[in-house]
Amino acid sequence: MKILVTGFDPFGGETVNPSWMAVEKLTDTVPGAEIIKRSLPVVWFKALDILGGYIEEIRPDVVVMCGQAGGADSMRIERVGINLCEAKIADNEGLHLVGDPILKDGPNAYFSNFPYRAMFAAVEEAGIAVKHSFSAGAYLCNHVLYGALHLAETKYPGMKAGFIHVPYLPEQTEAKPEGTPSMPLETIAKAIQIMVETIAKEA
Amino acid sequence: MKILVTGFDPFGGETVNPSWMAVEKLTDTVPGAEIIKRSLPVVWFKALDILGGYIEEIRPDVVVMCGQAGGADSMRIERVGINLCEAKIADNEGLHLVGDPILKDGPNAYFSNFPYRAMFAAVEEAGIAVKHSFSAGAYLCNHVLYGALHLAETKYPGMKAGFIHVPYLPEQTEAKPEGTPSMPLETIAKAIQIMVETIAKEA
Amino acid sequence: MKILVTGFDPFGGETVNPSWMAVEKLTDTVPGAEIIKRSLPVVWFKALDILGGYIEEIRPDVVVMCGQAGGADSMRIERVGINLCEAKIADNEGLHLVGDPILKDGPNAYFSNFPYRAMFAAVEEAGIAVKHSFSAGAYLCNHVLYGALHLAETKYPGMKAGFIHVPYLPEQTEAKPEGTPSMPLETIAKAIQIMVETIAKEA
Amino acid sequence: MKILVTGFDPFGGETVNPSWMAVEKLTDTVPGAEIIKRSLPVVWFKALDILGGYIEEIRPDVVVMCGQAGGADSMRIERVGINLCEAKIADNEGLHLVGDPILKDGPNAYFSNFPYRAMFAAVEEAGIAVKHSFSAGAYLCNHVLYGALHLAETKYPGMKAGFIHVPYLPEQTEAKPEGTPSMPLETIAKAIQIMVETIAKEA
Repeated sequence: MKILVTGFDPFGGETVNPSWMAVEKLTDTVPGAEIIKRSLPVVWFKALDILGGYIEEIRPDVVVMCGQAGGADSMRIERVGINLCEAKIADNEGLHLVGDPILKDGPNAYFSNFPYRAMFAAVEEAGIAVKHSFSAGAYLCNHVLYGALHLAETKYPGMKAGFIHVPYLPEQTEAKPEGTPSMPLETIAKAIQIMVETIAKEA
Repeated sequence: MKILVTGFDPFGGETVNPSWMAVEKLTDTVPGAEIIKRSLPVVWFKALDILGGYIEEIRPDVVVMCGQAGGADSMRIERVGINLCEAKIADNEGLHLVGDPILKDGPNAYFSNFPYRAMFAAVEEAGIAVKHSFSAGAYLCNHVLYGALHLAETKYPGMKAGFIHVPYLPEQTEAKPEGTPSMPLETIAKAIQIMVETIAKEA
Repeated sequence: MKILVTGFDPFGGETVNPSWMAVEKLTDTVPGAEIIKRSLPVVWFKALDILGGYIEEIRPDVVVMCGQAGGADSMRIERVGINLCEAKIADNEGLHLVGDPILKDGPNAYFSNFPYRAMFAAVEEAGIAVKHSFSAGAYLCNHVLYGALHLAETKYPGMKAGFIHVPYLPEQTEAKPEGTPSMPLETIAKAIQIMVETIAKEA
Repeated sequence: MKILVTGFDPFGGETVNPSWMAVEKLTDTVPGAEIIKRSLPVVWFKALDILGGYIEEIRPDVVVMCGQAGGADSMRIERVGINLCEAKIADNEGLHLVGDPILKDGPNAYFSNFPYRAMFAAVEEAGIAVKHSFSAGAYLCNHVLYGALHLAETKYPGMKAGFIHVPYLPEQTEAKPEGTPSMPLETIAKAIQIMVETIAKEA
């Protein structure tokens, strides 16, 4: 089995993105699967084009996309991608979208179809905070989630996909308000490793 | 114009639900519209049946549903309802759903179609914290949002609908962890009043 | 009775400080007391010198200092000032202190002696989130609290003093992480007004 | 060198206390020091009596007390203990104190004197979220901190003492509001281990 795992570039004034830092630390194989790691730019539609290229080249059985959710208090398993581009900030090339669809005439939403319950249980068992989430926002994280699930639906039948949101690193919260949660890189990386191993067993 | 505004009963161990407390305080009319106020039970499918009955009886032009979002730091305008019943807790009659669809073979999601941008702008202008939200969860709030939008799509063309989430009241946070945000009832009620007045002007 | 109420200038990259904005809105008198309002600079020792000058000039019965506590989820009544200057950021003139005493050989701490229980009860009764707090930090807010209580102890016997921390305004949280709490200016101002009226009755 | 490290019993409706769970996991020795681990009851004055007994028996060079700070987003190094007993909840034997001094005619506060800057730097270096805190509250954590520092001042000259607050475990936040932060037990234990090792080098 081949599992494509992606992380994102830094954005929104941050100099690091813990999603890609954690993905880089994944082992190259897990029992039953080869892990292929790629980073994606925080740029509307370009991220999706590049992801589509990786999928066409690699033909993964499962696509696990990872991104930073500033302010999250836990690992978050995203269950839904919606057909909407809307954010308070522009992307890394300066394009600011508010209310545009990802895909004109596309369905309103797709549900993630990677084995989210088994992934959740395995991370919880390891004592790491994890939640199901019903919104990946409407910025780049949701963008690639919706896009990958649309590709699975229309072009790569049988391919599974889903999204994992990760908290800030402790060092990212220093200049942020009291009470902004974070998670050590080591813990984030361990949680993603566990989830990928679970996918290799379950998917 | 007729605007049906709903709030919910208390749930999850709370003795009050600020959504219904605030809805009760709305004026009976605003310039251009009559306001009809109803409360809904926190019970899967029954809430939707009762809401459907009110809609059939009242034939509102707009349905504004309100509910409590414990832990929210602001008023939240919900933009999407998804076809999923899933929560950590049971409903008020003890039914615990995890992963069931609201409507077998229904579309994955509906987008709210009340005038959310004008509502947002009016509340922000009044100095009250407000956010667009892309998830009403997958408990009763999402349930009635999805259900009302489905009725608008299939049975009452032209009817508009959407959902407003409100924070805890200050008194609800006393036994909760440090940092749990709240909003005075007076402020919540003012924000909903402003949103309803905006709808009467815009919808 | 004369009550001196102070707020602070903006600091830490903010363009407003809700403490002074709210203090400015106070009525000029309340039953039983004249209210004198002054703003203070966010500058180590200079703030204290200026405050000392106001106290000498006005001879207030009570000094109520107000300041911004970014990330606070409620109004906070500060109960203790400590003999320490320590912050992550420099003051508005660029001086960065870490570990210095406010007063060499001063006592470690002073307890606030304004009527905090009556103030708390009155704000809670009005449905506004309020907490007792046992730390005003170790930046300028603590600085003037400790300094004013030291003046009460050593130079103006009978003078009462204490500190009130206020949350961010909603507009200050827009570029901050999800979950950053705020309070409308109107609500902050109402809470301070209630507390000052209570002091006029109780002190 | 002997380092006495304490944790607390569960309280406030919790069935576990991560402070004691983490302290139990400490190694029995670190380079340069023997570690002695003890748990304390969440009972006013009794906690202090028992702690005093341990100190008399063990004659530690340093006392490191640990406790749970529900809602904390990081490890917190407490810098000040104040002469006050005040909490929203009763202790584990039902005594509810509001406004009582710990020590009649004691000084208002004591500053921690363990090597907090080196401890902070070592934990931060390990990528774990850590903050200096200027309030351990006014419940049992502050109680033993103030008490131990008073003992150091009056009875055991040269003894150093300080307090470490730890977040909830992930499993404790399940029934709490969205946004309640937590930290894996493994991470908490690692942070305390690092701090104790630092003390052995520095104190």
